[in-house]
Amino acid sequence: MHTPFFVPLAPRGFSSISPPPPWHYAGDFLVIDFWARPQAVAAVLPAQLQADAKAEGHAQAYFIDWQFTGGHDELLDPARYQYREFFILVDAQFNGKPVAFCPYIFVDNDAAIARGWAQGFPKRQGSIFQTRTFAARGPACAPLIAGSRFGASASAAGQRIARGIVTLEQALTDSAALGSRPTINLRHFPRLAAGQWDKPAVHELVESVMDNFTVADAWMGKGELTLPVCEHEEISDLAPIRCGNGYRMSVSYSVTDLKTLVDHSAR
Amino acid sequence: MHTPFFVPLAPRGFSSISPPPPWHYAGDFLVIDFWARPQAVAAVLPAQLQADAKAEGHAQAYFIDWQFTGGHDELLDPARYQYREFFILVDAQFNGKPVAFCPYIFVDNDAAIARGWAQGFPKRQGSIFQTRTFAARGPACAPLIAGSRFGASASAAGQRIARGIVTLEQALTDSAALGSRPTINLRHFPRLAAGQWDKPAVHELVESVMDNFTVADAWMGKGELTLPVCEHEEISDLAPIRCGNGYRMSVSYSVTDLKTLVDHSAR
Amino acid sequence: MHTPFFVPLAPRGFSSISPPPPWHYAGDFLVIDFWARPQAVAAVLPAQLQADAKAEGHAQAYFIDWQFTGGHDELLDPARYQYREFFILVDAQFNGKPVAFCPYIFVDNDAAIARGWAQGFPKRQGSIFQTRTFAARGPACAPLIAGSRFGASASAAGQRIARGIVTLEQALTDSAALGSRPTINLRHFPRLAAGQWDKPAVHELVESVMDNFTVADAWMGKGELTLPVCEHEEISDLAPIRCGNGYRMSVSYSVTDLKTLVDHSAR
Amino acid sequence: MHTPFFVPLAPRGFSSISPPPPWHYAGDFLVIDFWARPQAVAAVLPAQLQADAKAEGHAQAYFIDWQFTGGHDELLDPARYQYREFFILVDAQFNGKPVAFCPYIFVDNDAAIARGWAQGFPKRQGSIFQTRTFAARGPACAPLIAGSRFGASASAAGQRIARGIVTLEQALTDSAALGSRPTINLRHFPRLAAGQWDKPAVHELVESVMDNFTVADAWMGKGELTLPVCEHEEISDLAPIRCGNGYRMSVSYSVTDLKTLVDHSAR
Repeated sequence: MHTPFFVPLAPRGFSSISPPPPWHYAGDFLVIDFWARPQAVAAVLPAQLQADAKAEGHAQAYFIDWQFTGGHDELLDPARYQYREFFILVDAQFNGKPVAFCPYIFVDNDAAIARGWAQGFPKRQGSIFQTRTFAARGPACAPLIAGSRFGASASAAGQRIARGIVTLEQALTDSAALGSRPTINLRHFPRLAAGQWDKPAVHELVESVMDNFTVADAWMGKGELTLPVCEHEEISDLAPIRCGNGYRMSVSYSVTDLKTLVDHSAR
Repeated sequence: MHTPFFVPLAPRGFSSISPPPPWHYAGDFLVIDFWARPQAVAAVLPAQLQADAKAEGHAQAYFIDWQFTGGHDELLDPARYQYREFFILVDAQFNGKPVAFCPYIFVDNDAAIARGWAQGFPKRQGSIFQTRTFAARGPACAPLIAGSRFGASASAAGQRIARGIVTLEQALTDSAALGSRPTINLRHFPRLAAGQWDKPAVHELVESVMDNFTVADAWMGKGELTLPVCEHEEISDLAPIRCGNGYRMSVSYSVTDLKTLVDHSAR
Repeated sequence: MHTPFFVPLAPRGFSSISPPPPWHYAGDFLVIDFWARPQAVAAVLPAQLQADAKAEGHAQAYFIDWQFTGGHDELLDPARYQYREFFILVDAQFNGKPVAFCPYIFVDNDAAIARGWAQGFPKRQGSIFQTRTFAARGPACAPLIAGSRFGASASAAGQRIARGIVTLEQALTDSAALGSRPTINLRHFPRLAAGQWDKPAVHELVESVMDNFTVADAWMGKGELTLPVCEHEEISDLAPIRCGNGYRMSVSYSVTDLKTLVDHSAR
Repeated sequence: MHTPFFVPLAPRGFSSISPPPPWHYAGDFLVIDFWARPQAVAAVLPAQLQADAKAEGHAQAYFIDWQFTGGHDELLDPARYQYREFFILVDAQFNGKPVAFCPYIFVDNDAAIARGWAQGFPKRQGSIFQTRTFAARGPACAPLIAGSRFGASASAAGQRIARGIVTLEQALTDSAALGSRPTINLRHFPRLAAGQWDKPAVHELVESVMDNFTVADAWMGKGELTLPVCEHEEISDLAPIRCGNGYRMSVSYSVTDLKTLVDHSAR
């Protein structure tokens, strides 16, 4: 019997929550630079990371419309595998090196939750939407031209946790402007046995590995973001003090690996 | 006090289920030609339309990712106004003229249900998905090139009512190939008063009016469609005997009018 | 060919959005008395109703878990027909008589939207939840005893529009305490033809008719309600200045009729 | 800094996908006994379990409406924590002892997915519904009396994966009739690092531990179940050859522990 990559252990592999790697992604990104209170950023970092004092609370909000495929044409089954995502990356340091850490992330698809957990992204279920661009011109098409605006929002359990607007100003020819900190996650899986709740089975600081990262149709402009106060949610602790650039672009990459930086898993 | 276009009668108009016209649309279409049993097509026609014998049961299935806007930047609020749609058009005749009639249509958005009912589209709630194309190349991007495949599906109340695949073969330079029958709907609103259930308040045969119809990036190829048998659903009566061409294109238009052909509303 | 009650005109009637009357309902209610600003209440009334000065802005919020059936065991198809609802009733006067008017109502089911529109309830899509009571005792069961608390919430397009809590104090033996104003709705269906947008095809003030109204397991206690400010929503204009009693009960009734009070439908 | 039980690592604990144990549950169960092909049952067992030849393919389908609470009144936040579930248990043996194993389980709530994964339940997202019983009598209330029928269904990604009906015959005074095999799960969490995909970080056979298990209002009668064939799903491999009893009851219990039987986690 084969060892499954994900549960459920389906004899023919189709009923598993997600296929095993390789995982291929293509998506449309809305990205907004913002600055939160530095103490709020420090509060969401795991013990193994340090605050990045020079960043002054810098963070980024991402709204993404994703298409996923594994090795068996999963992109032809969009009801099961296409999804939308919202997440925050905050600037931090690891061993004196600048990195980005993901404290909160929401998706509208369970296969994406499973893959995210395997990568260390702390995914929860949400409802995420962004304005799309369409090739046929008209008042509803949101063309990729200066002055076009793209709205986005994210909700969890019926509460609006984020709202963003990006106004395009100019095409972006040098995508280096997008920044290049490595994305660091906390990969974590609990133990439920009595007396062992504080000894997680998996607790590792990991670095995302992305192959064939490709950017197309990148634009930059002005970004606006709010993270409203919600009952029993903490993401608004990172509410912007000020916002910066906004970006809109298409991105693709593949995932077949993950790099462990620190392993604190309990044995 | 102003007369609202749609309920609820919100004092400032924002809380109405949809803004009043003009209604502007931009969308990505997957269209599949198919032939159903001619008797099944005849059975879904209202009394005012006749079967089109020469059509031999010809029909089309449409899967659409829509962006909507009214006059107040509704496209920036995609959580409320962006939506996905699946519908069937069957060939018919009205006064000896070839027309297309919509017997079944499903959307995942209540504002779209309201506008649809006003136009005579008999909309119900569903879950609809289609493979998207993304500008950044890679295994998940579904480029607009010969051989690319686009999958689509529609579900209602947790039952899969339609599944389609379009395989691109060639760019379509003459969109006249898409056909040009006018779309005819049955605009209908019931009476609930006892004894008047068979005397609908509104019961009109209407013709859709679309302004500034624009097509971009149109491709044609092979279409495949199934309409599975579902409990308490009749759409599978129209199940394809054979399928024909498939199309993938972007479309935009505006709606500000509707033409009444026959008015049988009870007075 | 039969005249359908609702669209779509399905040959065998199954695929219509909802079966025709009779409509039977059973549900669990959380009800919260509150007082809004009288001017805000007056602003949501249609022209044919007058403000009820003595009511001082009195209104009620209802959160309901509904089970529906028509004449063909629809209660056995809960994926299609079971639903949840949130609405507001405000005190008003019609011809000097005290009545209650429904300015805003949200459900999570399209069949309920269709029936609601036929009755004049201005339904939109929402996500509604309430704490339930379960027969097996334990920390999660919310028993019907003094001190038990029941939470509820409603959201539309990912924004939380209402949040309520009812704390039980005593069983209610005289359900007359629940009040008995007739429920008045504005039944409305637009015209889309150019030049006729302000001449609705249906525009009637109607009174709800409920048969076999039954109440069971009624409790009263303390009610708490908030109607948070949301982007592009007006329901928060009715935000409570103060709250009053809360109720929790089971209710059933049937609908087979509707009474027209004033008919302003355009001819 | 505290060690979180679940991600995300929220500073104040509210934004984690689920609170830590204790976990308290109350729910309404529809249970249907059925017999699948013994080879199909054997195919879904992990290596550490053996087929139970005497069971002849016996299995049970569960449809459950759940209310959850942790230690902070989570039952008052039903939008986030109330959920519905469908799962299958198949008879098996572990070291010669009769046990039940869960090959497939679906819930409509991400907090339930997270807790399930911690317990070894291989949860995916689904849409699950069951007929409810209401205290106020009428045609829609589904009373707990002989002859009452309760319908249920489960869907995943828009495909109907299960449909059940339970017809009540008699109140059940001895809940031992419900059977008492321990529930065995495969607790599993993958490794994504290249070259280690077949060396899961967690791979344990575990036994569920339930405290204060309480049953109320139990009825038994006739059960009917179908597991329709769905695209890219394997659950229909377990389609009933015949069905047996059906049950409807309320259940509550708490979870604070888990027992590991065999640990094959890779080190």
